[in-house]
Amino acid sequence: MSDIVCLGIDPGLARVGYGAVAQSGFKLRALNYGCIETSPDLSFTERLLKIYDAMQEQITICKPDLVSIERLFFGRNTTTAEYVYQARGAVMLLVAQNHLPIVEPKPNQIKMALCGTGDAVKSQVQGMVQRFLALDEVPKPDDTADALAAAVTGLALKFSS
Amino acid sequence: MSDIVCLGIDPGLARVGYGAVAQSGFKLRALNYGCIETSPDLSFTERLLKIYDAMQEQITICKPDLVSIERLFFGRNTTTAEYVYQARGAVMLLVAQNHLPIVEPKPNQIKMALCGTGDAVKSQVQGMVQRFLALDEVPKPDDTADALAAAVTGLALKFSS
Repeated sequence: MSDIVCLGIDPGLARVGYGAVAQSGFKLRALNYGCIETSPDLSFTERLLKIYDAMQEQITICKPDLVSIERLFFGRNTTTAEYVYQARGAVMLLVAQNHLPIVEPKPNQIKMALCGTGDAVKSQVQGMVQRFLALDEVPKPDDTADALAAAVTGLALKFSS
Repeated sequence: MSDIVCLGIDPGLARVGYGAVAQSGFKLRALNYGCIETSPDLSFTERLLKIYDAMQEQITICKPDLVSIERLFFGRNTTTAEYVYQARGAVMLLVAQNHLPIVEPKPNQIKMALCGTGDAVKSQVQGMVQRFLALDEVPKPDDTADALAAAVTGLALKFSS
């Protein structure tokens, strides 16, 4: 049985986490993962371009079968929300241009998929990412670990649906 | 003196207004304008793709020297805000990919530029759009008129800066 690859993305403007996970039967394996960072010294559109180009590079490298992009929730309508949602839109567009199916797990679905409860705290999720993917340590920064968690969740949701 | 063309955009998900305005000296002239509509029967990413492709077509047609995209403000963090900001992000990316300078007027800047007061009501702004561009009637829907107002404001801000 050939691998199924899910690319997880933790969207943002200053940092976009990404992590590709391959599944063979019950076995999960991390492929490329990391974090795209954009400096506040760049203009907003320069940051969008950088994210778009860097994410396309990762898609080209890992050739995912599906993409899992975390839904974002902001308690209040802040300027952060305004810009982070716009950055997410640029990434969603890119994924659609690559004709890839998208799963959009909510934060509590990610916690449920990795830890069995929607109330899990961040350190629990990170610990399970490390264990599921048999990594020597928790990937840094948090955005990278969150992207890998989204990828694992994407595979779980894909196979349960 | 050659024309300067500003493409105004009123961003959204269900409707994206656009309107190109050419300025020769003090004279303004509307070029292509209209409204891109996306059906709620399409998926979110299909709607993003449609907006992106249709806006690229308008950029190709009017070859703007600059683009004016209204800033959006939502009182509360609604689902509408989440999706409209993402759609705006896809359009911002497209404009950046075309290497075009962007002006992002706030709603009160548009009212000020067209009516001389930040408190103007929508009908005043629409009336001034019609008068400035010597149109037979107010362009419909509102999104189209708003985009032309953003274009006129973009030219005003560009020349005043």
